[in-house]
Amino acid sequence: MKAFMDENFVLHNATAEHLYHQYAKDLPIIDYHCHLSPQEIYENTQFENITQVWLYGDHYKWRAMRANGVEEKYVTGDASDYDKFLAWARTVPQLIGNPLYHWTHLELKRYFGVEESLNESTAPSIWKKVNEQLTSGDWNVRDFIVNSGVEVVCTTDDPTDSLAYHQKIADDPSFQVKVLPSYRPDKGLEINQDGFQDWVKELEAAANLSITQFTDLLQALQQRIDFFHEHGGRVSDHALNTVVYEEATEEEVAVIFAKAWNGEKVSEQEEKQYKSYLLTFLGKAYHEKGWVMQYHMNAHRNNNQRMFEKIGPDTGFDSMNDQLLAQSLVRLLDSLERSDSLPKTILYSLNPRDNVTIATIIGSFQGGGIPGKIQLGTAWWFNDTRLGMINQMETLADIGVFSQFVGMLTDSRSFLSYTRHEYFRRIMCNLVGEWVENGEYPNDEETLAKIVRDISYYNAKEYFPF
Amino acid sequence: MKAFMDENFVLHNATAEHLYHQYAKDLPIIDYHCHLSPQEIYENTQFENITQVWLYGDHYKWRAMRANGVEEKYVTGDASDYDKFLAWARTVPQLIGNPLYHWTHLELKRYFGVEESLNESTAPSIWKKVNEQLTSGDWNVRDFIVNSGVEVVCTTDDPTDSLAYHQKIADDPSFQVKVLPSYRPDKGLEINQDGFQDWVKELEAAANLSITQFTDLLQALQQRIDFFHEHGGRVSDHALNTVVYEEATEEEVAVIFAKAWNGEKVSEQEEKQYKSYLLTFLGKAYHEKGWVMQYHMNAHRNNNQRMFEKIGPDTGFDSMNDQLLAQSLVRLLDSLERSDSLPKTILYSLNPRDNVTIATIIGSFQGGGIPGKIQLGTAWWFNDTRLGMINQMETLADIGVFSQFVGMLTDSRSFLSYTRHEYFRRIMCNLVGEWVENGEYPNDEETLAKIVRDISYYNAKEYFPF
Amino acid sequence: MKAFMDENFVLHNATAEHLYHQYAKDLPIIDYHCHLSPQEIYENTQFENITQVWLYGDHYKWRAMRANGVEEKYVTGDASDYDKFLAWARTVPQLIGNPLYHWTHLELKRYFGVEESLNESTAPSIWKKVNEQLTSGDWNVRDFIVNSGVEVVCTTDDPTDSLAYHQKIADDPSFQVKVLPSYRPDKGLEINQDGFQDWVKELEAAANLSITQFTDLLQALQQRIDFFHEHGGRVSDHALNTVVYEEATEEEVAVIFAKAWNGEKVSEQEEKQYKSYLLTFLGKAYHEKGWVMQYHMNAHRNNNQRMFEKIGPDTGFDSMNDQLLAQSLVRLLDSLERSDSLPKTILYSLNPRDNVTIATIIGSFQGGGIPGKIQLGTAWWFNDTRLGMINQMETLADIGVFSQFVGMLTDSRSFLSYTRHEYFRRIMCNLVGEWVENGEYPNDEETLAKIVRDISYYNAKEYFPF
Repeated sequence: MKAFMDENFVLHNATAEHLYHQYAKDLPIIDYHCHLSPQEIYENTQFENITQVWLYGDHYKWRAMRANGVEEKYVTGDASDYDKFLAWARTVPQLIGNPLYHWTHLELKRYFGVEESLNESTAPSIWKKVNEQLTSGDWNVRDFIVNSGVEVVCTTDDPTDSLAYHQKIADDPSFQVKVLPSYRPDKGLEINQDGFQDWVKELEAAANLSITQFTDLLQALQQRIDFFHEHGGRVSDHALNTVVYEEATEEEVAVIFAKAWNGEKVSEQEEKQYKSYLLTFLGKAYHEKGWVMQYHMNAHRNNNQRMFEKIGPDTGFDSMNDQLLAQSLVRLLDSLERSDSLPKTILYSLNPRDNVTIATIIGSFQGGGIPGKIQLGTAWWFNDTRLGMINQMETLADIGVFSQFVGMLTDSRSFLSYTRHEYFRRIMCNLVGEWVENGEYPNDEETLAKIVRDISYYNAKEYFPF
Repeated sequence: MKAFMDENFVLHNATAEHLYHQYAKDLPIIDYHCHLSPQEIYENTQFENITQVWLYGDHYKWRAMRANGVEEKYVTGDASDYDKFLAWARTVPQLIGNPLYHWTHLELKRYFGVEESLNESTAPSIWKKVNEQLTSGDWNVRDFIVNSGVEVVCTTDDPTDSLAYHQKIADDPSFQVKVLPSYRPDKGLEINQDGFQDWVKELEAAANLSITQFTDLLQALQQRIDFFHEHGGRVSDHALNTVVYEEATEEEVAVIFAKAWNGEKVSEQEEKQYKSYLLTFLGKAYHEKGWVMQYHMNAHRNNNQRMFEKIGPDTGFDSMNDQLLAQSLVRLLDSLERSDSLPKTILYSLNPRDNVTIATIIGSFQGGGIPGKIQLGTAWWFNDTRLGMINQMETLADIGVFSQFVGMLTDSRSFLSYTRHEYFRRIMCNLVGEWVENGEYPNDEETLAKIVRDISYYNAKEYFPF
Repeated sequence: MKAFMDENFVLHNATAEHLYHQYAKDLPIIDYHCHLSPQEIYENTQFENITQVWLYGDHYKWRAMRANGVEEKYVTGDASDYDKFLAWARTVPQLIGNPLYHWTHLELKRYFGVEESLNESTAPSIWKKVNEQLTSGDWNVRDFIVNSGVEVVCTTDDPTDSLAYHQKIADDPSFQVKVLPSYRPDKGLEINQDGFQDWVKELEAAANLSITQFTDLLQALQQRIDFFHEHGGRVSDHALNTVVYEEATEEEVAVIFAKAWNGEKVSEQEEKQYKSYLLTFLGKAYHEKGWVMQYHMNAHRNNNQRMFEKIGPDTGFDSMNDQLLAQSLVRLLDSLERSDSLPKTILYSLNPRDNVTIATIIGSFQGGGIPGKIQLGTAWWFNDTRLGMINQMETLADIGVFSQFVGMLTDSRSFLSYTRHEYFRRIMCNLVGEWVENGEYPNDEETLAKIVRDISYYNAKEYFPF
């Protein structure tokens, strides 16, 4: 029996151990997709206690607590920070087989030197030990980033964002990590959602440009792309909860936009046409700038209206969606490929059922001499588990070129989650080690080292034009 | 090499062996969902031969025989019981990798002390040995139940059922096992199916209440819920072959019902509205009573019309369906959650593709301080295989709180199938053992014992208000 | 650690090693589905270099090269054969985890005695060594077939094909391998595709029969079935990219056909009706002849229009589709079963998500005393990987009768791909070995030998009436 979470955690053969410790472990991190607050990074926020850094805003933990029977009071309610921590500590031992069990102990161990397992009886001493370190000033926001070896952080930003904090961070000579914006224009795509008009108004203000017709919208979006580019933005992101594709002319879409801008709802078909046109427009714009485009697909959000009304979005009430995507996705990508203007693209589905389909679709759009131009994105959200990552990597290896994989991102709102890169690298090295130990790939040190280092770091470094 | 089906069958590491033998093996069984006949239990039926108890009505075995080239005469036809047994015995060795191979030998071993493998040459002696025991009176229906350590059996019953045999069993002081009804009102939901009117008439009779309009139907259904409750019923079950959700007012649904009650077919949209309204109504009624609600989804029944006309339903001609369910299921559950009247719910899909989607959906409806309130049901029907169970459990552990899982049920028509609980517990202990042996969870005896015992028995005991 | 690709490649336990070497390895091959050219077989083509036999036409390799960043010039462009080989050699080491890595080295080893791994530095010597053998005349087309132990090859042929080369091969006493046609009438089903009218004209010519109405079409199709049958054809194949089923009378379909024959497009509904009617008609015709029918489902073809216009179909720009199929497939099969005229059928989906669904559907149509009458086809195309095959076999074993599986086919355009049968047999023996070693099936040599030999060869020999 292996000891719990020792130095060879998740590494189950000698090749895996060697590859991880020798080649993967100490490489820097390029975290090309997350939801961290640039303001908190700029201000280098200090936390008063572990609940603040760990449980505020972490809806993964909230879901687990609710499922374990913890009352809402101790999840997002008015219980004290200590009582919330205690409720979490009681939940942790129940999480056998869940990545939260591993993340929890990796984070406690790597950042705060806590070696015990968290449970009801160890909770008081861990509370004390961690809080002392947090309040000492040794573990402010930037310390987590720097001590994790992070080189680049890409935040997620609306096109209307001023990027003021990104600018401030860039201007601060005391902090060398690049904190770059990602362009996420979802609100401009969701033409039928409440708030669409307000958002267009914000865009007018941000672009300092009057939007009276569709071409103005396009111009404003392009202008913000230019602005993001000036601030180091090289990545865009789209949440395509359902993937649609319907052709329409610019004239037709202009009419649809005019309707919505005028406050009317548009038909489902019109919504599809509007989205398709805009996605193609934006894809071309990204291609021109040399950006990387990301599509995040098949999420189903805000499932629980009662709780949504109480505590809002991103509080742990989302799920996978199971909409079909092959036909629409192929047509959407082809709409760009046709004019040879498909940018580098990463495709993520929340539903792991789609992995294998997407792995074959990307193979239809590779080319141009760009290694791994179109990527099957790393296991996303509910899938960033050991099994979810193995599924994503085995699928990619089976069907595509695993060695060109750009690897892990945190997708996180928490400054402690960089240990997920460690978790990923261990799982990846174990998979590679298994292939070698089983005689499925030669034990050629140089090649193996290159593969492992590339997926951990160098592929991302090469792929993203930061 | 491990001997075939020895005491450590399916247990592939020392921790798993220890956990199973020490903690799981001897716990009682709560079989909260099956298709046993309360009449046979009451009458304590004696079987004349193994074909009667084993092959009459077991469409799992029938399917395997047909696929193996056995002619229908020896499956459901007029061949002798012995010839049918022989046809099955010839099929068994072909079933490598199939759970039927394991179930067969577990049942022969545990109940009848048969140690050889069943095949054409051992068939005559096994026929003799088992039949002697069956006709001795030592293995009547109740003996299987009692000797398997069963505490509760929930049968599946139409709301119009008199529950006479449940009452008789309850009144019989010589039999201490609780045999409780489950409320399964599918025929009242399937408004477009032949027989809907007849069923409503039966409901009128059962509820002793004239149904002239929709509110009468609701009243009658409620009355039968009360009646089931008085007879110990605490569980309902719904077969949602396709999950639909369409809002409608009570007035609109009243019109739809009136149409159908009048013998007209209703439109697809109307059918959806009727079902949605009724499911919400029933869900609220279950919630009020503190019942557990079950949805069984994505089955496709009676695929083979020729055979259906010959030998009727439940004869081995069903399959998985592959309809999408995320969006409708979310809206259906939310329709109850909105008014804070979502009961404890167990969700099963026949298509294992749905497991991971459902695992995330349940996370959106947990709450109220109830541990594991919404459950991903155990691997159902075609999935109650070793791999199917592992998939269900790994999915639940990855995404939810495995420790709160209410575990196994037989879903069976056979009195011999209690060994499936043994099969499940072995598989579950092996999974837990692997996590521990691999250093993914601490080797903490007390916590592990609790998890294994809870999933085997105590979670169900706590969850169901029997 | 196991050496790379030694004699026990993919065989990870003693039982597997024994079964493979003793029973599976040396059995002949029945390759009941491929895309080889009967002309090349007849002419016994000699290759000038390895690029011709290996890289011309192999879109699996082309996809991998593109994804690895190789420019199109070196894939399908005008680079020299040597430069193309070099581009491939540079790609190979990147293909860790991909079956191409295994196929590549199995083919080099088994046919040409190359023991080194292919990469940039070994490329020149391997180029020389293989080319010497190819140009020596020892490895012409027929040599690959004969030395691989192939007994039967089924090519894929349009109903309008003259089968002239099949006839010539049959007439050639120096070549004993059966090369038989398969009937693939896709162009007659795709009523809305460009070229439909031209195809009907070709059919008129081939059948020597004037087609003025729908019954003429049926007669011509039947006549070609008879013709194929005379030439040894016993298998048909259909590409159902989307599975549809809509009932219609012959009169209705006659009107639909008349429209299309007249050059008009028909509606989506009409297309479904036409296809359903024709598939049922053809299924009955196959049944009458005792043929085996194959449906290949859920492919999405020619995704990349830009490349399609440049280099045409079958060049590596296809993918999985993800359309639902349970309901339509059940109705389609039932339309034949209803009149007791469902032929032996093999069902393949390109999307592995469908495996488990299909495995349950076939169970609804087994019967007639024919072992394994309806088959879950072996892992197809993107799934003919180690993991893809394991998934297909575990699914079949879990839900159906694995021992009746008719096993592997190459589906290939390359004369070197017979080693995929070796790959399959190793994986299959390893799976069986695991079951035995784990104590899940008795270690009964005779039964195991039979199972392994049946799946490798004898089941196919029995199933196909060649």
